[in-house]
Amino acid sequence: MIGRDSKTNAGNQSEVDRLQIGGLVFPGFELLDIFGPLELFGMLGDGAVITMMAESVGEVRSHQGPAVLAETTLDGTRELDALIVPGGWGTRALAKSEPFLASLRAAADRSRYVASVCTGSGLLARAGLLDGRSATTNKINFDWPVSQGPRVNWVRQARWVEDGKYFTSSGVSAGMDMALGLIERMTDRATAVECARRAEYVWQENKTIDPFAQCC
Amino acid sequence: MIGRDSKTNAGNQSEVDRLQIGGLVFPGFELLDIFGPLELFGMLGDGAVITMMAESVGEVRSHQGPAVLAETTLDGTRELDALIVPGGWGTRALAKSEPFLASLRAAADRSRYVASVCTGSGLLARAGLLDGRSATTNKINFDWPVSQGPRVNWVRQARWVEDGKYFTSSGVSAGMDMALGLIERMTDRATAVECARRAEYVWQENKTIDPFAQCC
Repeated sequence: MIGRDSKTNAGNQSEVDRLQIGGLVFPGFELLDIFGPLELFGMLGDGAVITMMAESVGEVRSHQGPAVLAETTLDGTRELDALIVPGGWGTRALAKSEPFLASLRAAADRSRYVASVCTGSGLLARAGLLDGRSATTNKINFDWPVSQGPRVNWVRQARWVEDGKYFTSSGVSAGMDMALGLIERMTDRATAVECARRAEYVWQENKTIDPFAQCC
Repeated sequence: MIGRDSKTNAGNQSEVDRLQIGGLVFPGFELLDIFGPLELFGMLGDGAVITMMAESVGEVRSHQGPAVLAETTLDGTRELDALIVPGGWGTRALAKSEPFLASLRAAADRSRYVASVCTGSGLLARAGLLDGRSATTNKINFDWPVSQGPRVNWVRQARWVEDGKYFTSSGVSAGMDMALGLIERMTDRATAVECARRAEYVWQENKTIDPFAQCC
């Protein structure tokens, strides 16, 4: 078992010591955007508790077809160590919902870290959460998230960007590299490296290398 | 839209032309084992239909916590172009279930291709489906799958192995590299490369390179 207390405590961890990770889903979310990062947090074993959340409890269908079960509402979440916000085509409709954006702002306020994958940064931007911050997003569909946040410093070449409590990644698969960077920030580098090893994942640890940047 | 007919038909595809992809889940399945490959098949857009299946219809909880909805039974599946079999700690109990193994054999028989990720190859091996074939599996938990298939030629150093209609990958993340290899086999290389690009995924295209091999 590895996790928040891995440096000092290799035994059982009480609920209060475990990292509370929230995975947001909505109709039309992108599968790997959320399950890539959650897989890696899952490698913390007893060191993390993963909860799926949505605007309402129940089945939520991904863009690819498979449906997942949301067990809590975004409004009903207690304090989180990390809130993970995926992208996907469903972001376009969601960004127009003021009730959703209000819930997202409140949930972000209750979270130690907020991390978006792909066009999920468009939701954070539209909610105003990235104003004055640096952020990145999907490189093939770069324009839509940018249009949602005119006061964001959008970075065109980055696997992921870290600015205070906000982590934003490039498209889909980049969320896994970012998740390991976030695990490093929340625990330590050795723990992040071990999570990658257990998943047999070749971590691109340098967040400035971006094979899919369409500029620069 | 890309897919089976991408070379000849860029217009609408009828249901019969779309690749039918089945994603098997069971209690204690590993999240990324199944959703990594399904994400990449999803990049075929209208060229693929993805259906989650299990021993019975309904909610199926992963090892990491999130639950997914199985919409058809393994017994009830029609012919598939590809059946994807994940691993995870749930494989240990499942490998002892003769009814499950019988269903798996029948479903494999109805599938053009069968692909396992991680310890999912232990299930295929126990069902006798890999007898006389080459296969690989998770490199950190190599011994259990091997114990399930004494007549399998287990390959200790491979990102994935292809033997006839059976594709087997190394642990967790390796399933994505294999899925792209399977997409290449089912369509063409350009289509696989395009699926990787859309997912901003750096495809490790050489299946013999294995950063996590613990031998050789």
